[in-house]
Amino acid sequence: MDLRDKIRVIEDFPAEGISFKDITTLLKDPEALHQCINEMADKFKGVHIDMVAGPESRGFIFATPLAYLLGTGFVPVRKPGKLPADTIKYEYELEYGTDSLEIHRDAIKKGQKVLIIDDLLATGGTMYATAKLVEKLGGEVVGLCFLIELKDLKGREKLKGYRVESLITYDK
Amino acid sequence: MDLRDKIRVIEDFPAEGISFKDITTLLKDPEALHQCINEMADKFKGVHIDMVAGPESRGFIFATPLAYLLGTGFVPVRKPGKLPADTIKYEYELEYGTDSLEIHRDAIKKGQKVLIIDDLLATGGTMYATAKLVEKLGGEVVGLCFLIELKDLKGREKLKGYRVESLITYDK
Repeated sequence: MDLRDKIRVIEDFPAEGISFKDITTLLKDPEALHQCINEMADKFKGVHIDMVAGPESRGFIFATPLAYLLGTGFVPVRKPGKLPADTIKYEYELEYGTDSLEIHRDAIKKGQKVLIIDDLLATGGTMYATAKLVEKLGGEVVGLCFLIELKDLKGREKLKGYRVESLITYDK
Repeated sequence: MDLRDKIRVIEDFPAEGISFKDITTLLKDPEALHQCINEMADKFKGVHIDMVAGPESRGFIFATPLAYLLGTGFVPVRKPGKLPADTIKYEYELEYGTDSLEIHRDAIKKGQKVLIIDDLLATGGTMYATAKLVEKLGGEVVGLCFLIELKDLKGREKLKGYRVESLITYDK
């Protein structure tokens, strides 16, 4: 099955000129969901992975089944104030203003090999922040995996130095 | 393994007097995560399930691996404005004010048997809203499954008439 056929493209959402990639049509299809998770795992076949991390909230959708399949733990990376224990924060620039993400200080042990998953690679800001949080805790980022990559937004350049994998690409 | 031993209880989060159940310590433990998903599936062994639904964002964490394991699709139920296509909404009362949840109108077909998953059963408001959304689309709710149930908050009474399962219970 070509997973691209299961993505619904919605024009002008959430703002005019944006061609939104709706993943819910893939998620509700049992075969497509299964294939998607299996393909993500296949991309990192032979790579030792201790932990799968994912930023909220669409990252959770793919990161936990992958952790289940690979037999690893799962670490959520969240918006400020959501994680209840001691956290570290990474602040990053947006077009207007800043945003930040947090991870529990005890989420990852030094030297653990971490795969990070998200649904979409656009400019790469969220994933970059997530990778930096993992590294601040002493984790080693063994790969970044996305369901969809929007090539024209050059997220891959932002994530240079990391192994980046995506299952479906669009120009924008 | 007793999954309860993997939950970290944090006092006075997010507000004084609340004894917050932190699930991240369970999630990062590979065996505990695996056992948790398997136990959820075991609770509904022999029940025909077409779709697993979960409210954002912690519901996503358990609903997708369960969908993967059961070979079903996954349907996200989200806060207003997050789902890009045509949605229906369910508004519900909070202690102060109201909140609402949305589901895509084409998420579930009439007659589909739906299992709904969330991390925590407190007063049951979120889960009740999710079940009503599934039913508005013609879905049949075959069960509601939680990792944790806070018994004193009487969520089970709110969800009367549904099959409710939880893996770990606390008084409050």
